[in-house]
Amino acid sequence: MKKKSKEIEKHKKHDESQSTKSMKRMEKEGPKEIADHIKKIAMDIVNDIEAGKNPRFETKLRGRGNVLFDEDLGIIKLGDKSSTRTFLNIAHARKFMQTMLIMAQTHEYLTHGKTASIREIYYELKHTVGKTGENTFEDQRESDAAIVDLEHSIDTIREKLNVHANPKGTLYGDITLIDRAHHNDTFNCLKLGRGGWSIMSRMEPNEIEIKSVNADYVLVIETSAMYERLVEEDFARKNKAILIGTGGQAARGTRRLIHRLNVEYKLPVYVFTDGDPYGWYIYSVIKQGSMALAAHSRLLACPDAKYIGMTIQDIKDYKLQNVTEKMKPMDLKRAKELMSYDWFQNKPWQEELKMAMEQKVRIEQQALANRSLEFVATEYLPTKIKNKIFLP
Amino acid sequence: MKKKSKEIEKHKKHDESQSTKSMKRMEKEGPKEIADHIKKIAMDIVNDIEAGKNPRFETKLRGRGNVLFDEDLGIIKLGDKSSTRTFLNIAHARKFMQTMLIMAQTHEYLTHGKTASIREIYYELKHTVGKTGENTFEDQRESDAAIVDLEHSIDTIREKLNVHANPKGTLYGDITLIDRAHHNDTFNCLKLGRGGWSIMSRMEPNEIEIKSVNADYVLVIETSAMYERLVEEDFARKNKAILIGTGGQAARGTRRLIHRLNVEYKLPVYVFTDGDPYGWYIYSVIKQGSMALAAHSRLLACPDAKYIGMTIQDIKDYKLQNVTEKMKPMDLKRAKELMSYDWFQNKPWQEELKMAMEQKVRIEQQALANRSLEFVATEYLPTKIKNKIFLP
Repeated sequence: MKKKSKEIEKHKKHDESQSTKSMKRMEKEGPKEIADHIKKIAMDIVNDIEAGKNPRFETKLRGRGNVLFDEDLGIIKLGDKSSTRTFLNIAHARKFMQTMLIMAQTHEYLTHGKTASIREIYYELKHTVGKTGENTFEDQRESDAAIVDLEHSIDTIREKLNVHANPKGTLYGDITLIDRAHHNDTFNCLKLGRGGWSIMSRMEPNEIEIKSVNADYVLVIETSAMYERLVEEDFARKNKAILIGTGGQAARGTRRLIHRLNVEYKLPVYVFTDGDPYGWYIYSVIKQGSMALAAHSRLLACPDAKYIGMTIQDIKDYKLQNVTEKMKPMDLKRAKELMSYDWFQNKPWQEELKMAMEQKVRIEQQALANRSLEFVATEYLPTKIKNKIFLP
Repeated sequence: MKKKSKEIEKHKKHDESQSTKSMKRMEKEGPKEIADHIKKIAMDIVNDIEAGKNPRFETKLRGRGNVLFDEDLGIIKLGDKSSTRTFLNIAHARKFMQTMLIMAQTHEYLTHGKTASIREIYYELKHTVGKTGENTFEDQRESDAAIVDLEHSIDTIREKLNVHANPKGTLYGDITLIDRAHHNDTFNCLKLGRGGWSIMSRMEPNEIEIKSVNADYVLVIETSAMYERLVEEDFARKNKAILIGTGGQAARGTRRLIHRLNVEYKLPVYVFTDGDPYGWYIYSVIKQGSMALAAHSRLLACPDAKYIGMTIQDIKDYKLQNVTEKMKPMDLKRAKELMSYDWFQNKPWQEELKMAMEQKVRIEQQALANRSLEFVATEYLPTKIKNKIFLP
C-alpha cells in the first residue's frame, strides 16, 4: 500500500466532521437500527423488481486499491470506491442470491435476539435450491464473502449483524460487566480466581455493558503464559491495571473490548508483545486496524495505544543478550515489510525495526524470566509505565 | 502399539490393589509431598557423591515399547521399564546437569508457592556455565525433556511441580470454585455472562477447590462455536449440565478438571465432538489418555466418559446428508489407524469407524444448524442423553 496523500486530503475534508459523527453512530447502532437498515435495502430491491428494473445491491470495494491510512484518525480505513452487483448478470446472480439469503437470515437473528457463528449460518442456509441440483453455498468461503459484502454495504461489523467468529482472549482486573442479554449476570473480573473471564466473540455495548472500571490503564498481553505470570504476581491489583490476554493475534471480540475501554472509559492502552515481527504486527492491528478489515477500524482500532515492549533496546538495558533468538530469513522479510507501512513511518519505530534487522535478533516476553520470574511485574513494566518509555 | 495381553496380565496382579491406592496418593500429593520427594532424590545423589560413587538418576522409559492399555482401568499407561542416567557418562552428563537444574528450580517454586510456564523455566535457567562457553540449555526442547524426566521419576504431573503449559478451555455452569492460592476468590460459573470462566493451566485441588456443583452431568464440547451456541440456548440451566469448551484438543488443565469432576463428584462425562478422526481422537485422549502422556492418565484420563456425537448414524437419523464433508485421504488414513488402537476394539466403535470409511464422510457439530440453530439444544442432545444413545 503506497501513501496516498492526495486522496487522504480529499477524504479528510469529506470526513473531518463526518468521521467522528459516523463513528458515534456506528458505535451506538443496536439490533433495531441494523435490522431496519437491512430491511431498507431489501425493500429497495423489492421495489426494483416490482418496477421491472434490474435489482441491484451496493457494497464497498475492498482490497488494497481502496485502503487508506488516515493519519489524522490514526487508523487504516476504506476509501469511497463502491461496487454494484446486479441480479440480471450471469456473473453476479449466484452471489446476489447468496447475499439475499444472508440478509434475510441476519434480519431474522436481529429481530429474534439470536446470534450465530459464521460456520452455523453457513450450515443453516446450505440447501439445494428446488429441483435445480444447485446448492445455495458450496463451502463456507461463499457465505463468509456474502457476510463481508453485507457488513460493508450497511457499514457495520458482523458482530452487529449478530454473527461472529470464534472467541479468544481473557480478561482480568477490577472491571464489572453486565450481560444484558443473559440473565443480567453481573460479575467483577478481579474476583474470578487466576483464570479470569473468557472474552466473548461479540462484545457489543447493547449486550455486554461495562458497569464500572476501577483502573488506571489497560495492559494487553500477547502470550497466555505472560498473562498468567502477571495474574499470579497480582499485577492488576498492585498497579490498578486491567489485564487482557490475547493468546496471539487478538480476536475481534478482544479488539472490540480494548477499543471500548479506550473510547468509553478513556483508559490508556499499553500493548506488551514479543519483540518480533509477529508481536509488532499484533500491536499494529490493535492500534491502527488491519488492511483486511479496513472498514471496521472505527469500531475495532485503538489509535492511541502505546507499545510497551519487548524492544530491541531492552536486550541491552536489561542484559538479556543470552536469551535472544535469531531472526530467520522469514522474520527479516516481514520486518522489512512492516518498515514500509505508513503507520510505522515514525522515527522510534524506524529505529527499532532497523536495530532488529541489523542485529538479526528477536526477544520474547518470557525472556524476562532470565532476570527472575517477578522481574517483569516488579521492575520492567512499572518502570516503563512510570517513565513513559513507549514506542508510539 | 500392539496388544500385550501377557504383560497386561502381569501388571494387573501387580497393580490391582496398588493402582487405586497409587491413584489416590497421586491425587492428594500437594506441594509439600512433591518438594520432599525431589529433596529425597537430591539427597541420594549428594550421598552418592560423598561416598565417591557415580551419581545416578532414575526415570521411567517412555515410548511405545513401554506403553500399555490397561483394560481394567480403561486407561493408557506406562509399563515398569525404567532408565538410569549416570553423571560420569559422557552421553548422560549434560542431561544429568539439566535435570538437576530443573529439580532445584521446581523445588524452589514448590517451597515458595510460585508457578512458572515451561517457557519461563527454560529462560530462567538458561545461562552460560562459568567460563566453559557452554549454555545450560540450547533450546526449550532440552528443558522440556528434563521436566518430563522429573515428572516420570517422581511419578507425578508437571502441574504438581508448579510448572505448566498454556491454558485453553472454558467452563460454564452451576459450579462454584475457590482459588485457594489467590485471595480465596469464590465464584459461580453460571453467573459470568455468556463468556464463562477461563480454565487455568493448572487445576490442582490444593489450589482450585471445587466448593459445590449442582449438575447432573458434564458436557465436553470440541468447538468454541458449539460451546457458545449451548450457552446462548441456556442449555446448562435447562438441563443441569456443566459445559466445558475445549476449543479443539483439550489442554492439560481442562483434562484435569474433567477428571476431577468425574472422580470427585461422580458426574457422568459426555463428549461432543465433530464426527471425524480429529474429533474421535480428542474423545479418546479425554477418555483413555494419550500415548505421549501415558504415565499421567491416572490424573488426566476419564475412563467412563461417553461419546455423544457427532456419529455417522446421525447423518441418516437427522437428515444431514446435505451438510456432510468429504473425508480426505489423510482422514481415511487416520481413521484406519484409530480403528487399530486397543481402546477402539469394541463393536460400536468398529462399526462407527467402518461406516465413516465406507461412506468417506465426516460431519461437523455445526452441521446440526441445518435443522435449526436451537435443534442441538432442544432435540439432539436431550434425546441422546435421555435414551442413553452413546458410543462407549
